[in-house]
Amino acid sequence: MKSLRPLVRAAALASVSKHIDHFSRFSPSPLSMKHFLDFGSVKACERTSFKFLRQELPVRLCNIMKEVSLLPDQLLSTPSLQLLQTCYTQSLMEILEFLDKNPEHQEVLESFVEVLENVRNRHNEVVPTMAQGVIEYRQASGRRDPVTDHNLQYFLDRFYTSRISIRMLINQHILVFNGNSNPAHPNTIGCIDFMCNVTEVVQDAYDSAKLLCEQHYLGSPELELRHNNGHTNQLQMHKIYRKMHKKIMHKLFNAMRATIETHEASRLLPPIKVMVVVGEEDLSIKMSDRGGGVPFRKTESLFRYMYSTAPRASMEDQHRTPLAGFGYGLPISRLYARYFQGDLNLYSMEGYGTDAVLRLKTLSTASIERLPVFNQTALRHYKLSLEADDWCVPSKEPLDLAIHRMVK
Amino acid sequence: MKSLRPLVRAAALASVSKHIDHFSRFSPSPLSMKHFLDFGSVKACERTSFKFLRQELPVRLCNIMKEVSLLPDQLLSTPSLQLLQTCYTQSLMEILEFLDKNPEHQEVLESFVEVLENVRNRHNEVVPTMAQGVIEYRQASGRRDPVTDHNLQYFLDRFYTSRISIRMLINQHILVFNGNSNPAHPNTIGCIDFMCNVTEVVQDAYDSAKLLCEQHYLGSPELELRHNNGHTNQLQMHKIYRKMHKKIMHKLFNAMRATIETHEASRLLPPIKVMVVVGEEDLSIKMSDRGGGVPFRKTESLFRYMYSTAPRASMEDQHRTPLAGFGYGLPISRLYARYFQGDLNLYSMEGYGTDAVLRLKTLSTASIERLPVFNQTALRHYKLSLEADDWCVPSKEPLDLAIHRMVK
Repeated sequence: MKSLRPLVRAAALASVSKHIDHFSRFSPSPLSMKHFLDFGSVKACERTSFKFLRQELPVRLCNIMKEVSLLPDQLLSTPSLQLLQTCYTQSLMEILEFLDKNPEHQEVLESFVEVLENVRNRHNEVVPTMAQGVIEYRQASGRRDPVTDHNLQYFLDRFYTSRISIRMLINQHILVFNGNSNPAHPNTIGCIDFMCNVTEVVQDAYDSAKLLCEQHYLGSPELELRHNNGHTNQLQMHKIYRKMHKKIMHKLFNAMRATIETHEASRLLPPIKVMVVVGEEDLSIKMSDRGGGVPFRKTESLFRYMYSTAPRASMEDQHRTPLAGFGYGLPISRLYARYFQGDLNLYSMEGYGTDAVLRLKTLSTASIERLPVFNQTALRHYKLSLEADDWCVPSKEPLDLAIHRMVK
Repeated sequence: MKSLRPLVRAAALASVSKHIDHFSRFSPSPLSMKHFLDFGSVKACERTSFKFLRQELPVRLCNIMKEVSLLPDQLLSTPSLQLLQTCYTQSLMEILEFLDKNPEHQEVLESFVEVLENVRNRHNEVVPTMAQGVIEYRQASGRRDPVTDHNLQYFLDRFYTSRISIRMLINQHILVFNGNSNPAHPNTIGCIDFMCNVTEVVQDAYDSAKLLCEQHYLGSPELELRHNNGHTNQLQMHKIYRKMHKKIMHKLFNAMRATIETHEASRLLPPIKVMVVVGEEDLSIKMSDRGGGVPFRKTESLFRYMYSTAPRASMEDQHRTPLAGFGYGLPISRLYARYFQGDLNLYSMEGYGTDAVLRLKTLSTASIERLPVFNQTALRHYKLSLEADDWCVPSKEPLDLAIHRMVK
């Protein structure tokens, strides 16, 4: 990330907090997959998109910047968070400059695309930078309490979702209006595959995961892939956000690794079974491995952001992606699924294996962005203090049934 | 439920609220499956059990009576809730009479068992009575808002769990100390099977569900049952709360019904597949049907207590049990699983079928009662008002991307 030019910095510091207060009073406007497709179709109008984004991007940026400002001071003062805030502020100010520009001038539209490209590139490393900030904070404060953990998990889910959504808006505008269609993907509009065969996506994700797996383990389990069209006569073609491909690959790789590590002694690796079902409402992909599973008690913790591993490592070495920064794979994959009203759930049977079920919406009108909004409810989350559990926590000590208990 | 004798009523009304305040200040003491087994083994001492229960039962009763008193006035004033409160008050007063009795006198211990039997019988119909009260309340108030629905769901989960736990304590004491061992079940201590083969329980539950299913549908799907001992060399014998048998049967019956209704046109019914896995920590039972599934969006609502059907019907006609009162089967089954730190989850693939996964704890020391406790956190739940969602709720209307949005 580049440092701010001195003049911009001065201006920014003076007025930025006023702007954040103003734009965070608006709720973000969630778009559906259908909106995104219409944007990129023949009906697409660059001026309309420009007019929407010059308002919507500041709204989304400021809603999340408000939440950033509620983080603990010790976290905000880390070098990583300082860098992040500078970066968000600069992007906000650059976009705001277009508020009073005339959409009818072609050079305004062109320079807007340029600014969006700069913003996108400036934010490339936001995820590892934020993760690094959290690590610095933990090391400096030297403590981990459940309330801070809970609040950070809440914040990171929202912060990363906000980032996914902002990049989606920016990427769609750049890809649709920069004049270059995407020759490698003729069936895409921006980042959306509009003629996607889901079983092919799974097969493709498996092939990539298999390659990686064989590099590391000199072997890999087979794939058993089934497809079921349910009650409906739906076409097999779906609108899929391209990023889902990588998430499926990631999950399949984890399933392979668990299978291999559980069956080290055996010559036969049980296959990874994948089932794709297209319902009227849900498109479900179930990936089942026999990798030994995890206890039910630990399932939710698999979705926690791990603070011990810096995901930065994974950014520097592309070949190691699925291994390094592993601690972020699962929670971020779930965010991508939830972003369009889907979900990712793990159903493990400890001692046997795990089913991961990814659900997306079948209809593009139902695939609507799920966006964090800063309001009183969100504010309350950051002020949460440690509450007594409203269900009894069993003591670890053996209970003497005759002796009596403490008053609450 | 019998009406109160006038004298007891007068005494009760005078002092009951003082007693409730006093005993609700104590937290319930959760017992583990191992505690229950020790109670019933050679080490069992009736005096110790008496001394524990005469304190613990009032504590559990008063903790939940406090929450009952926080229900909306319109619900509390229904005839059903009036009856329930009378019934809880009478039971509380009857047990409190033992607080200053001498445990060394055999006649005290004997009359305690008698009182417990009366209490148990008096509370037999608490579930349908409470459900009836909720129906009366809904009919009288004529409205259903999400906050009331949420608070009632919260309350009913806790109220029914409290009842399960109180009956467990009472039943164990009666069965262990009334002098009659249970000849029909030589491997039980009270309500606990201590030499239970889980695959046999499943087979047994399937056989019962099959009978019912054939009565109604003149056919039933087959069972495919697998067992996996996971990594461990655990014995296949487990400690199971006997009520789980009925819950598994109920779930299997639902799976059969969904299968039959989905495959009406076909001659071949796909089997119900059940897999039992014994891990080091979890004992998991996965029941998979191909009954068409439900959309993901609706999964959690399957666990809501349905207010339209009075479960009372199912009490009057034993043969209709699994059909009538259906709306309560799933939430109550989940409470039984959670009561000993397990859980029941549904993973549906809409257009295909549903996996229901029941998880129990493998170790009897880890199967510890999960009990509601009345405290400030619980109190806050009843005072919950409607909060704005901290994630954007997409509008149903098509979005005009150029026109701007409302201020929050």
